[in-house]
Amino acid sequence: MIRFVKGHGTENDFVLLPDPDGTLDLTDDLVRRLCDRRAGIGGDGVLRVVRAAADADGRPMAGDAEWFMDYRNADGSVAEMCGNGIRVFARFLVSEGLAPAGTMPIATRVGVKEVRLGTSGDVTVDMGPARLPGSDHKVTVGARSWPAVEVDVGNPHVVVFLDDLAEAGTLDEAPTVEPGFPDGVNVEFVADRGPRHVALRVHERGVGETRSCGTGACAVMVASARRDDVTAPAGSEGLSYVVDVPGGRLTVTERADGHLELTGPAKLVAHGTLDGVWSAGE
Amino acid sequence: MIRFVKGHGTENDFVLLPDPDGTLDLTDDLVRRLCDRRAGIGGDGVLRVVRAAADADGRPMAGDAEWFMDYRNADGSVAEMCGNGIRVFARFLVSEGLAPAGTMPIATRVGVKEVRLGTSGDVTVDMGPARLPGSDHKVTVGARSWPAVEVDVGNPHVVVFLDDLAEAGTLDEAPTVEPGFPDGVNVEFVADRGPRHVALRVHERGVGETRSCGTGACAVMVASARRDDVTAPAGSEGLSYVVDVPGGRLTVTERADGHLELTGPAKLVAHGTLDGVWSAGE
Repeated sequence: MIRFVKGHGTENDFVLLPDPDGTLDLTDDLVRRLCDRRAGIGGDGVLRVVRAAADADGRPMAGDAEWFMDYRNADGSVAEMCGNGIRVFARFLVSEGLAPAGTMPIATRVGVKEVRLGTSGDVTVDMGPARLPGSDHKVTVGARSWPAVEVDVGNPHVVVFLDDLAEAGTLDEAPTVEPGFPDGVNVEFVADRGPRHVALRVHERGVGETRSCGTGACAVMVASARRDDVTAPAGSEGLSYVVDVPGGRLTVTERADGHLELTGPAKLVAHGTLDGVWSAGE
Repeated sequence: MIRFVKGHGTENDFVLLPDPDGTLDLTDDLVRRLCDRRAGIGGDGVLRVVRAAADADGRPMAGDAEWFMDYRNADGSVAEMCGNGIRVFARFLVSEGLAPAGTMPIATRVGVKEVRLGTSGDVTVDMGPARLPGSDHKVTVGARSWPAVEVDVGNPHVVVFLDDLAEAGTLDEAPTVEPGFPDGVNVEFVADRGPRHVALRVHERGVGETRSCGTGACAVMVASARRDDVTAPAGSEGLSYVVDVPGGRLTVTERADGHLELTGPAKLVAHGTLDGVWSAGE
């Protein structure tokens, strides 16, 4: 009998599988069936919740983290990190009493990430620093093209500033980016909503337009702050932008040490057990 | 604390809410949030499972049926009947021990329907008779048009025979039907797969292309049987066609009394409880 929890952060949704002792055989096929939105539970990915010491596989540096986020994409492939996923993961740990509220390290495939949360409300994750290589790109959708700013947040992004998000059209197909990136690139379109307040649409490489993207929100915040030429108020924790995504509202704060903190809702929607249909290979 | 079960019949999927005593206040808003595929559980609709005697509302004829299927569309609106939904509903009753396997009457908004099932495996529902008014219609998708056969299975259908289902294109928009129907019409495209074996694609009115449609499978079976000019073998239970839908395989049998029996899988995928987020109006 397999337990599960369904949760989402700004409508980036996940099937969480509590597996503290690492006994679950999470095959690619099971991931795909779980994430199937009609024949399964449905989700953008699976987050297996395993004690770091219970799973020697895929943890380059667990450090003092008690828990490892074994994140898989909906297609069954292994994924590295997800700013929305890790916030939902931390909310689950606190909700289940597996970790106390406060600041906690969580192991991922790209190292230990620090997450901060109370017993309820928003969850913050330290996404590390961003890098702006300063190279110029051109993004094309249909007959329209715009200049774009490259931002590296561990994964590659290009950010396009628009007057109106509708200018990007339907985004049914991946925008063309020149010069291109060897492994593809995530494309964010941004419009202003007010002082230090922007809204975005995002086309994720290999996925399509999505309701939210944690690293995309970070890339957009940094590109916007550089464009606006603003810095953190003296004595503050850092420079904060509100970043509206189609699935909700995030806040990104650039700390004095250059790290980006991603803050937003992380909701657990339902919990239960999978019925027998899962084991029979039906 | 609200219990739920997620289930599907040929990928027509539902959130079932056990509410035997009719105490649940199932608002339109709650239905929409439950059916939201990212922020909720996700489904084509909600099936509230209520004892017929516990709910005086909306049952024109409960007869000897112990259970009433309170079916709502994903948009919160009240729905009448669903051939896939009622099969999943019956599987739930047997699985939970609320009804014994065998033949059972289930009350719906369009009267009592008879369902037949074992303790596992496929589920059969008596969908009643179909009517072929004999009127000619024309269905157009993009630059292509085809003649179509009208079939009334309690709701209106037109059936188009193709050599290849791909001829119908993407079905991103509703096909044009001439002459039209005052409340819209469901459109099925059919291709042959073998003797008494067809495959369909369906555009449901107000919804779009779907993975399955129980009444659509019935309409297609009747239109195909009339086209093929075949009748039931002597001494048989009736004339059966296998009808492949995008989400799986159904069988439709036309009995000697003209009633159509729809048979196919009805799977319960998971069960659990909704977490606190549902009550807070978040």
